[in-house]
Amino acid sequence: TPNHIRTSVDRTPFHADYIINHTDEKLRDDIRLMKRFMKGIGTYGAEPDVRGFSGYLCELITIKYGGFLWAVRRAAQWKVGTTVFIEEKGEPMKGPLVFYDPVDKNRNVASAVHEDTLSRFISACKDYLENPDRRFFFPNKRTAPPAEELMAEWKQRDTGLLLLTFDRPDIIPENLHAQVWKSQYAVEKKLNSYGFEVLRAEHGEDEKKVSLLFELSSFTLPALFTHDGPPVHVETAEGFLEKWMDNEFGRPFIADGRWRVVSRRPFTDAAEMISAEVHHAGLGKAIDPASMSIYSQEDAVKKADPVMLAQLFNPLMPWEF
Amino acid sequence: TPNHIRTSVDRTPFHADYIINHTDEKLRDDIRLMKRFMKGIGTYGAEPDVRGFSGYLCELITIKYGGFLWAVRRAAQWKVGTTVFIEEKGEPMKGPLVFYDPVDKNRNVASAVHEDTLSRFISACKDYLENPDRRFFFPNKRTAPPAEELMAEWKQRDTGLLLLTFDRPDIIPENLHAQVWKSQYAVEKKLNSYGFEVLRAEHGEDEKKVSLLFELSSFTLPALFTHDGPPVHVETAEGFLEKWMDNEFGRPFIADGRWRVVSRRPFTDAAEMISAEVHHAGLGKAIDPASMSIYSQEDAVKKADPVMLAQLFNPLMPWEF
Repeated sequence: TPNHIRTSVDRTPFHADYIINHTDEKLRDDIRLMKRFMKGIGTYGAEPDVRGFSGYLCELITIKYGGFLWAVRRAAQWKVGTTVFIEEKGEPMKGPLVFYDPVDKNRNVASAVHEDTLSRFISACKDYLENPDRRFFFPNKRTAPPAEELMAEWKQRDTGLLLLTFDRPDIIPENLHAQVWKSQYAVEKKLNSYGFEVLRAEHGEDEKKVSLLFELSSFTLPALFTHDGPPVHVETAEGFLEKWMDNEFGRPFIADGRWRVVSRRPFTDAAEMISAEVHHAGLGKAIDPASMSIYSQEDAVKKADPVMLAQLFNPLMPWEF
Repeated sequence: TPNHIRTSVDRTPFHADYIINHTDEKLRDDIRLMKRFMKGIGTYGAEPDVRGFSGYLCELITIKYGGFLWAVRRAAQWKVGTTVFIEEKGEPMKGPLVFYDPVDKNRNVASAVHEDTLSRFISACKDYLENPDRRFFFPNKRTAPPAEELMAEWKQRDTGLLLLTFDRPDIIPENLHAQVWKSQYAVEKKLNSYGFEVLRAEHGEDEKKVSLLFELSSFTLPALFTHDGPPVHVETAEGFLEKWMDNEFGRPFIADGRWRVVSRRPFTDAAEMISAEVHHAGLGKAIDPASMSIYSQEDAVKKADPVMLAQLFNPLMPWEF
């Protein structure tokens, strides 16, 4: 019985039974529509790189609300933190979306759904209700503006641009895309931690390379910053004071109970920082930092995929192309 | 009896009695030494602008540890959050330093002591034990380097400088200094909230003016930044999307469950920001924003008190002059 379910392989036949026993032909048409919608807006889990809704979850959402349009109407009202169940609610669980598995009440069918994927789905449902359009199911391909136009737009924005490319590892697409996401987040975190403010990031790939593209509020930073030391009363304060006593930019001073000192930033140039720090940035395992090439500013505009660059400068949803 | 104490006026005779009954001539000499030390290092509450140790608190600390040097030895081990009592510990209280009043056990004699004043006292005690020196009690006056030297030092630092002067209000010194501190903190907060990174701040005054001096990592900021909107699922998200739909720097996008947009900073110049925002910055009540003059960069170097500028670039403790 479902009470003894242990693994996803154990569970699969129960899932199939549940769907068959709770749908008629009309509802199965609506499920197909829901899956097409999820694919079109880029939230379907089976698609690469979305951290999204599985096929089974699409089926359950449609069953729960009795059809595609009813489901879209309800989901347009969802919030991050929404809890849904059909048969029975199990133990309290946390996540952007909690959807209790009707055949295993202590499992969250939506555990893979990222907060931003859920937000996109909610937003798409709202937009669809206002303006139902074929593009939600069959989005157009975004076309790239001419190269000169992108260069002019970048110059007008006057921002920093950093393009990193890596050899594409020979692994299955789902795994690759998870690792590209992880790498994008890791580099973004590094940039922010060194004071480079990331405005937006995009990633992409072709047969040979994976690319990470970052727009920064500025490619370079001012020379000086404040560096926080230990609280005044701790043992290690002595070492900090000794180290900084002859500091070129002034002695340590007390701020909010800690020693603080004005000093030179370790890196004022984003490319130099990444070149030095990428090896311990926490990239995806299969992404080899030794294969990295760095393209900065104009070079990044010239080298980046124009569609990725257009999406960086003006992020559109798939149904808005 | 002390149990019925209500106001500080009620309390004063009990304080005087307590001190007289718990000191001999030797200990009273040590109390004078402690007060001289506190004045010298700039942590004595009766001195303007220190948010520091009252005379009564100096007396109690000396009594508690049985003399000046014993007190300094113990205070060198204090931490932010230290609790001290002589007779009896009252209700738990919070603060950088809690010193239970021996004649009113639910009062903290050290409630006015700021975290940074306490930290300075701890640090001075450590330094004094390593190198007992007359300067802890009678500090030298800091001398100003020549003007050209300060200008050269600023150019080498390549930082932003902002000097604000206000008419000196005709109020008692203690009140004035509290208001100058409040104003310094308020402007610092404004600067940081608009993205101008404050490295250090100093304040000063003469017969006619009070001055606030800020060193910034940069006087100007890059043109674009990210502006966070509401969570995707809330009602007000509609308004945010409508407002930004035709944004020059790209449509809103979803990040961490919220709408976010790349847009132009409201202010890229520190002086322009302060000029526009000073009226609702939360200055001290008696400090009139209408009397403000702003001096930027070179002008700030030329106009600022050279000692204040030297202290900004290289903060020294009074016993280090």
